[in-house]
Amino acid sequence: MQNSIRIPPDQMKSEFVRILIKNGFNKTRAEKCADIFTTNSLEGVYSHGVNRFPKFIENIHKGYIHPDAEPSLVVAAGALEQWNGNLGPGPLNAVVAAERSMELSKNYGLGMVAIGNTNHWMRGGIYGWMAAKKGYVLIAWTNTEANMPAWGAKDFRIGNNPLVIAIPYGNEAIVLDFAMSQYSYGKLEQYSLEGKRLPYPGGFDRNGTLTDSPDEILATRRALPAGYWKGSGLSLLLDILASILSGGLSTSQISVLGAEYALSQVFIAVGIKQLPNYPGIEKSIVGIIRDLKGSIPVDPDNPVRFPGENTISIREQNRKDGIPVNKQVWRKILAL
Amino acid sequence: MQNSIRIPPDQMKSEFVRILIKNGFNKTRAEKCADIFTTNSLEGVYSHGVNRFPKFIENIHKGYIHPDAEPSLVVAAGALEQWNGNLGPGPLNAVVAAERSMELSKNYGLGMVAIGNTNHWMRGGIYGWMAAKKGYVLIAWTNTEANMPAWGAKDFRIGNNPLVIAIPYGNEAIVLDFAMSQYSYGKLEQYSLEGKRLPYPGGFDRNGTLTDSPDEILATRRALPAGYWKGSGLSLLLDILASILSGGLSTSQISVLGAEYALSQVFIAVGIKQLPNYPGIEKSIVGIIRDLKGSIPVDPDNPVRFPGENTISIREQNRKDGIPVNKQVWRKILAL
Repeated sequence: MQNSIRIPPDQMKSEFVRILIKNGFNKTRAEKCADIFTTNSLEGVYSHGVNRFPKFIENIHKGYIHPDAEPSLVVAAGALEQWNGNLGPGPLNAVVAAERSMELSKNYGLGMVAIGNTNHWMRGGIYGWMAAKKGYVLIAWTNTEANMPAWGAKDFRIGNNPLVIAIPYGNEAIVLDFAMSQYSYGKLEQYSLEGKRLPYPGGFDRNGTLTDSPDEILATRRALPAGYWKGSGLSLLLDILASILSGGLSTSQISVLGAEYALSQVFIAVGIKQLPNYPGIEKSIVGIIRDLKGSIPVDPDNPVRFPGENTISIREQNRKDGIPVNKQVWRKILAL
Repeated sequence: MQNSIRIPPDQMKSEFVRILIKNGFNKTRAEKCADIFTTNSLEGVYSHGVNRFPKFIENIHKGYIHPDAEPSLVVAAGALEQWNGNLGPGPLNAVVAAERSMELSKNYGLGMVAIGNTNHWMRGGIYGWMAAKKGYVLIAWTNTEANMPAWGAKDFRIGNNPLVIAIPYGNEAIVLDFAMSQYSYGKLEQYSLEGKRLPYPGGFDRNGTLTDSPDEILATRRALPAGYWKGSGLSLLLDILASILSGGLSTSQISVLGAEYALSQVFIAVGIKQLPNYPGIEKSIVGIIRDLKGSIPVDPDNPVRFPGENTISIREQNRKDGIPVNKQVWRKILAL
């Protein structure tokens, strides 16, 4: 970590605000967007926080992201709405869509917003955290460009299409946020740079054999769908749903654009606080987590954790110590 | 296959009807339930069709399944309803819940039915096929008793909680139906009996190393969640959702009953035919599948298939040749 410095969250956010305003965001929208990039970093998802910020600005310059575009309602069908993201900033569009699904859920018990023609949402988990902290269950997913071979294939035809499921848990949340590839290319490159093998097989080598060598996988580009054929199938179905429900583009259509933009996403919210059995719900969730954490761990020093549990500790540490940032990345951002 | 005979679907169904009526089903319900067990077998899911039928009858005798119980509405909250399965037959309850979610979707754009206190739905995919053939998207899942260690654990605390996603596709459907364990115990036992290794690692051996030996996994009982930590997390979240949304039991609560009954399930239907972009939707699905099938296969003799594609060919073959059944299993059924 000698190449990294610690930046206080407030300082990071002000830099982001400054740069976003310089790039066409009004103050309110710059604040909101900067907050998302900062929170993603604060909570340890640097790849879709501070490290990704320069690329986000680059995509504005290239015209893929329209800083002032806001999403618009296309079809209202009761608890289900289709929206057009108008190529606005992915994180801001995602917040509008998630909040609208919560609004719909107030009227209908649950709400679904499918949004096409939007942009990369960065880290899906953050919308899960937002919704869960307001007392909603959120199920959301996005498609991506093709970046993984389908099961049994050699060439990229499916996306890694991250899926988020978030559930309120006391003042915090249980948030599952996972891509359909076992490891991201970013993770494979990190292991390769560090000269390490993957903890578990993550793709295929030149002979078509499962391997834990990041270099072999980076060479074949045959990254492993999570759960082999299962993650491959789930990726396909999430893409079909995102594109048909929103009326937006599918992974195969995005992949011919030459850059990853104009994505399709789905947000489903359920207002569990409105349910008559809500007091029981809180108790029930606590009971399930208690049971999980009663598991006999394989490694006594590593008790079983629930999805999102690490986020809480990382957030606390980074709030105290500052957010770790690669010096070069930070210098690049200061120069934007 | 010398131990198996081929039974025409109609003959299989009449046997099931006869036995169900003998065990407390009225004629209409016996026909419906027999049809599900027969179709599951016809479509190649013998483990949750003909092979499971004797156990289903046994569970009636043991009082876990109440043949004449029908599900009842507990809470109506717009597009979301909570139902009590009243321990009725799982397949019949699942049909009521799936159909009710489609009804709700007619009024609200989408519909969600969460049903607690129900029973094993056998093969979730069949409700997906039913809904998709009527023009609905269906997302459904069930919890189960604990039958898998969470990621990093040694003892069973999570279920394999199958998830189904179904999408209309011409006169057929794209149906993903998968459990959160990489291989079922039935599959592990089958490989063990045949003296074969698994095609891919499916669990851990005595040293805590990933293995493709079914015997080692059957010994440690440490079956692998699909996608390692990803399937483990998804299993947990599906269980929390199924139990809190239905007001029913969670995996940990089911696991203390001493038998697998009183399960919780969720059915979400979306009536895509009602959407203004429906004509485009059909075309879009065809385009996505065409792109997928354009993949360069690893094995030129094994083109990439979409989830559910095998079902169509197995169904045709079994309709022509009869459903293959182990002679002993069939004898057992005839004697019921």
